[in-house]
Amino acid sequence: MEKPLVLVSHAPPDEIRDALAKHIGDEASVRFLPDLSGPERDTALRSARAVITYHPIRDLGIDAIALLDNCQLIQCLTAGIDYLPLSEIPPHIPVAYNAGAYAEPMSEHVVAMALAASKRLTVEHNNMRAGDFNQFLPTKKIRGATCGVLGFGETGREVARLMRDLGMRIEALNRSGTTDEEVDFIGKLDDLDRVMAAADVLVITLALTRNTDRLIRSEHLDRLKPDAVLVNVARGEIVDEDDLYRHLIENPSFTACLEAWWIEPVRHGKFETKHSFLDLPNVIASPHNSAMTDGALVVAAKRGAENVLRMLRGEGARFLAGDDVRML
Amino acid sequence: MEKPLVLVSHAPPDEIRDALAKHIGDEASVRFLPDLSGPERDTALRSARAVITYHPIRDLGIDAIALLDNCQLIQCLTAGIDYLPLSEIPPHIPVAYNAGAYAEPMSEHVVAMALAASKRLTVEHNNMRAGDFNQFLPTKKIRGATCGVLGFGETGREVARLMRDLGMRIEALNRSGTTDEEVDFIGKLDDLDRVMAAADVLVITLALTRNTDRLIRSEHLDRLKPDAVLVNVARGEIVDEDDLYRHLIENPSFTACLEAWWIEPVRHGKFETKHSFLDLPNVIASPHNSAMTDGALVVAAKRGAENVLRMLRGEGARFLAGDDVRML
Repeated sequence: MEKPLVLVSHAPPDEIRDALAKHIGDEASVRFLPDLSGPERDTALRSARAVITYHPIRDLGIDAIALLDNCQLIQCLTAGIDYLPLSEIPPHIPVAYNAGAYAEPMSEHVVAMALAASKRLTVEHNNMRAGDFNQFLPTKKIRGATCGVLGFGETGREVARLMRDLGMRIEALNRSGTTDEEVDFIGKLDDLDRVMAAADVLVITLALTRNTDRLIRSEHLDRLKPDAVLVNVARGEIVDEDDLYRHLIENPSFTACLEAWWIEPVRHGKFETKHSFLDLPNVIASPHNSAMTDGALVVAAKRGAENVLRMLRGEGARFLAGDDVRML
Repeated sequence: MEKPLVLVSHAPPDEIRDALAKHIGDEASVRFLPDLSGPERDTALRSARAVITYHPIRDLGIDAIALLDNCQLIQCLTAGIDYLPLSEIPPHIPVAYNAGAYAEPMSEHVVAMALAASKRLTVEHNNMRAGDFNQFLPTKKIRGATCGVLGFGETGREVARLMRDLGMRIEALNRSGTTDEEVDFIGKLDDLDRVMAAADVLVITLALTRNTDRLIRSEHLDRLKPDAVLVNVARGEIVDEDDLYRHLIENPSFTACLEAWWIEPVRHGKFETKHSFLDLPNVIASPHNSAMTDGALVVAAKRGAENVLRMLRGEGARFLAGDDVRML
């Protein structure tokens, strides 16, 4: 029996190409769309059982998507797919996001940001430059403090593991309100107020959906401890931009670690903020690069491939985009 | 039988006063020198079996030290005592340093600095301010990378535990070249070259002694990986100041996280550097505040008290300052 075809919409670097071929190769043929042209290309599109892609609309195009007669899964390689115009994909083709694709590097980045803020690294570096050597001003202790985790998927759970190893208590929220993970509290988004109030460090790893858009507003930020640290590695839109800026201005001992932005290059073609977050002493900013460590793209590709294999084996693909995830 | 007297050379805050009284109280009387005057003071000094102090010369004074007829231990509360003029204390009175007094807060500070540097937090924040949004420039992965630990006492081992939990390999050096701790390599200072070359993150937790003064010079720094991260939470003097500055200038992807300085307020009455470290983009500086978290002074006082109890019980005090530690 001929192996099913898995079509990759783009031409990845060799190490990812090799990883996909090796991971999927025993159970399916892997072809890369840019390698194909003419009738061969059309045939591949018509026969593909699955497509692996960063951006189905941009990388395949509407015309190619129309040819996907046998496609039973479009597997995206990015964890967040809120910015993909999924309404342009025929509703009968399931789309999966790559949950936790970058859980390991992102969780390390979260620890870096949360601890840099807790230990006042950027603030005191600047104070030293200004001539102040504040040796006896206490910094936040991590052991025994509470880490709130909003969104307890792959990335949130990996964050929790690292934070627990550092001695933090974990209070997490997810859709089900249940988890097998070792936590001190697990709840649903209904329990947001409780976790906001308990958190010394509050980490947002939620997917942006219709339910999480502008989830965190002034009324929630006002529940935070005055010296809490907020880390957003998910999507800017989950936190109201105006409310966050005001909270930063009004609470100088509060720190926001912003890795995800409201208007940013990959999703919007540019970086732009409504307020001058980068000039505030209580902001630590990173350019949405938490996923980018050596080898991270290969791990993410393997995770996507694994979900395709689940579908091909009849085990059912995971992380399918439901109606709430389809923002566009 | 009358309880032995433990004399505290200074008037600590109530929480430390209470902690000392509670910790030692069953086995010894605890008196605080500033509470005493006249003959009562002299009698206390003459009868004290142990003295607990931050700085024996400054807090007791030479005249009072001369009265310590029955003292069998001067227990310092700081971990590093290189800056105390121990030659002014009669040689028959053993002096103990407070090893690992601040191991927990310091180890958290080390993780904060090492990860902030590895994830380029300060560099990319500044790049964003300058208009560069470097989303695809890789940062260092922590999992699987190697943490070198120079000095594997209480603080070094606590650093190693946290780094191991984050997935790092541990290569450590101590005096004996042996350890019960879980490590990937343990050696003596003879093995410095090996650890310098292997380290992605190199943490210095050594005591400053005659053997470690200017231990790290150009010949060692040159063995580091180009993008290595050096974290010094011990003493500035362990690293040659000129050599480190030159290495920073010549290796822009190398980062130095400097918490301990060459000339700093507690030891020298001022903060001063020969070179403008604070202006370099590849330096993360903190004002020797890694020990200062809520409650850390109480923990340190209890550790010192515990060593005094060992002496009183005849178990032998630990961490006695040998000839190599007596710098002054």
